Amino acid sequence: MLDHLDDLHADLDAWLRIPSISADPAYAPEVARSAAWLAEALRRTGFPVVEIWPTPGAPAVFAEWPSAEADAPIALVYGHHDVQPVDPPELWVHPPFEPTRVDGPDGPELHARGAIDDKGNVAFHLLGMRAHLAATGRDTPAVTVKLLIEGEEESGSPHFAALLEQHKDRLACDVVVVSDTGMAAPDVPSAVTAMRGLADAEITLRGPAVDLHSGSFGGAVPNPLHALAELLAALHDDQGRVTLPGFYDKVRPLSDRERELMSRVPFDEQAWLAGPAASRATYGEAGFSTLERTGARPTAEVNGMWGGYTGPGHKTIVPAEAHAKLSFRLVADQRPEDVGPQLRAWVEANVPAGIEAEVHTPPGGVAPCASDLDSPAMGALLRAIGQAFDTEPGDVLFTREGGSGPEADLVEHLGAPLLFLGAGLPTDRIHSPNERVLLPMLYRGAEAAAHLWRELGAMRLR
Amino acid sequence: MLDHLDDLHADLDAWLRIPSISADPAYAPEVARSAAWLAEALRRTGFPVVEIWPTPGAPAVFAEWPSAEADAPIALVYGHHDVQPVDPPELWVHPPFEPTRVDGPDGPELHARGAIDDKGNVAFHLLGMRAHLAATGRDTPAVTVKLLIEGEEESGSPHFAALLEQHKDRLACDVVVVSDTGMAAPDVPSAVTAMRGLADAEITLRGPAVDLHSGSFGGAVPNPLHALAELLAALHDDQGRVTLPGFYDKVRPLSDRERELMSRVPFDEQAWLAGPAASRATYGEAGFSTLERTGARPTAEVNGMWGGYTGPGHKTIVPAEAHAKLSFRLVADQRPEDVGPQLRAWVEANVPAGIEAEVHTPPGGVAPCASDLDSPAMGALLRAIGQAFDTEPGDVLFTREGGSGPEADLVEHLGAPLLFLGAGLPTDRIHSPNERVLLPMLYRGAEAAAHLWRELGAMRLR
Ligand SMILES: [Zn+2]
Ligand SMILES: [Zn+2]
Repeated sequence: MLDHLDDLHADLDAWLRIPSISADPAYAPEVARSAAWLAEALRRTGFPVVEIWPTPGAPAVFAEWPSAEADAPIALVYGHHDVQPVDPPELWVHPPFEPTRVDGPDGPELHARGAIDDKGNVAFHLLGMRAHLAATGRDTPAVTVKLLIEGEEESGSPHFAALLEQHKDRLACDVVVVSDTGMAAPDVPSAVTAMRGLADAEITLRGPAVDLHSGSFGGAVPNPLHALAELLAALHDDQGRVTLPGFYDKVRPLSDRERELMSRVPFDEQAWLAGPAASRATYGEAGFSTLERTGARPTAEVNGMWGGYTGPGHKTIVPAEAHAKLSFRLVADQRPEDVGPQLRAWVEANVPAGIEAEVHTPPGGVAPCASDLDSPAMGALLRAIGQAFDTEPGDVLFTREGGSGPEADLVEHLGAPLLFLGAGLPTDRIHSPNERVLLPMLYRGAEAAAHLWRELGAMRLR
Repeated sequence: MLDHLDDLHADLDAWLRIPSISADPAYAPEVARSAAWLAEALRRTGFPVVEIWPTPGAPAVFAEWPSAEADAPIALVYGHHDVQPVDPPELWVHPPFEPTRVDGPDGPELHARGAIDDKGNVAFHLLGMRAHLAATGRDTPAVTVKLLIEGEEESGSPHFAALLEQHKDRLACDVVVVSDTGMAAPDVPSAVTAMRGLADAEITLRGPAVDLHSGSFGGAVPNPLHALAELLAALHDDQGRVTLPGFYDKVRPLSDRERELMSRVPFDEQAWLAGPAASRATYGEAGFSTLERTGARPTAEVNGMWGGYTGPGHKTIVPAEAHAKLSFRLVADQRPEDVGPQLRAWVEANVPAGIEAEVHTPPGGVAPCASDLDSPAMGALLRAIGQAFDTEPGDVLFTREGGSGPEADLVEHLGAPLLFLGAGLPTDRIHSPNERVLLPMLYRGAEAAAHLWRELGAMRLR
């Protein structure tokens, strides 16, 4: 079905040469150049409306190709054109911004920073739109297609919510198609159905007014480091469950059907442990599989901990303070704003006599999101992916993303349901050296997009 | 009994003006000047043998005044002529190296760094020796008195053991009199009977090979910070006892008599908490008082802890490593070299699956030491202190020091029992700004020394 593969290759090669690292202010001109390049490519593809939207940070790109049918549904594609830093550069086999083609066991790969996250995922939509028009013989797509490709996702999307609010009317849509994820394996058509949310917290415990000499005071006054260890040890029970009262109250339980569907996702735990995880054992909430633990269950994680003397040698003190940074991954229908009060109450109740506790939870956080497995739009997505992989919609598996992005902002500000269509693979080394994309996955992504616009065009979602 | 009080005042004034801070290499010439000053003062007092003993660090001062009786016991006085740094200088009411006399509620005080720790404690021996000779009408003391005043105590006495070994023959003695401690209160004659020992350790826990993204991996792989918190929380049981198997095996239990004697030491717990401890509550091993906890019971203390992300903001990682520095205060007859194997075995047994543990215990440590309450030398000390305070030997209370110094080295290298005779008070602010000495306590110390030489001289300890 696909023509114009050479165009895709040429486009990606040019775009991936632009080091659009949003986290490093020194690369701000490159991020702007990346936005300009994408705008030009969208115009070349035929989008009649293409605009660069500035923000107080990096610019986003907006494009729109209206359907000729006035009542056609509107789909908004979300992606990002900024990329992760490349540290450490010495671990890259090929220079990160010189895209290099490598023949791998599953087909040709393209190695570069951003190859899949997220330039590859955005680029397949250009090819997909051409394929859609060619296959349907139309001049305009069967749905009005909008794209919003931001430039700060890898920096936490600090201005994204404001951008959505500012352009709410232009962005109005019936469905959001998030293209920043992937599938379970090269030969396994699958659709992401949920992303976890996030709430951060910092705990400070204070004991003596100053660091005390442990010879004179040790064993007779409370040590904040001991108190912190006891507190954090008590954050999980012996079943690996988070002990904050109320933490699980709003968690949508996994239905038997969802668990059955998740269990069909091929997952080689030993290979996973040996891969980027490089861990010696699995661990987690009793009664759940690793995929369920990372995708469908909330967690509490200590991200950092410090206090007392941490230099060379030894200093025999009872320190004045102890600190920990925590993050909580949330699942539907937990709310990030509930975590602060839950944690604060629990710390107050569990801190020993003589220790003063302070719990800081930054405002915001990220809400979890989940797709309705039985919605008409989800049906269209499954049919589109099935066709792209030459299989039945019922063979398309459901997966869940453990991480958190600005997707919840899209739901909140635009009020439209989410679909996820991405061409990444768990083995693509995103955010790591030697990021790659499997080119046949991009072709599948483009085909699925082409089918999706046709499938959605046959519906009336309003 | 005392003449020559003006000499003591003049001597202290001159000596305390020398900033002999051993921890700061910039002050090395001052530490040398302090040694030279002390040697000259000892010669002036009449000691026929006075030598400065160099070390790879700061010099020590050795002096000897042989008794005319060939079979008289030999007493070795231990002290130090270096002082603590003065940070923060802005908290000093009077400049730390301009000794200033202040009239306090308990009598005249002298404020200066080193006023009691340890120049005051050493200086009273000069006066004590003169008083001893004057009171007994002798030309030579009733015991052979040796002094070893080191210059690196506040820097951990790194060369002290080697110095003892090198001069073993010159230092031979029947009893060591440590003058680097104090008494319970101005009106409370007391003798220190024990010092705690020390063993240091560092624990490193390793989980994933690199810091992992908590969105993708959180809740499914073991987090070394969680494992460290669980480990350190389990280091004490709910009675505040250290849980290392075998840790208490060699602890000499407190006898009812010792507990009764300790309970007679006046101790205002609320004042103690409000003082340098500045703590909000006491804490510790169930069944023991605060004085017992700090003086007579071993402890495990976490001195530092770190791992993961500790910078500003948040980084949602499962960190690769977690670290803790620990120190153990030991009491007779525990041995510092036992702690490493005990800790290592316990960590191995308690670390969860998927976490690798490394326990580092530096060689050495400090052995605890304790005096025999019923030895003849202790009897002499109690009588001497009793006479200095115009009271009965049975009214002299026993106290214990929570900290650790080079005293155990003296026992080990010289094979002589320890007595403690010091004129400090818990309120003297040693190691802190505004260190002071209560001058009447120095006079009592000198009197006690004078009596002690006479009392010991009446014995034949060999
Ligand atoms: Zn991305
Ligand atoms: Zn001292």
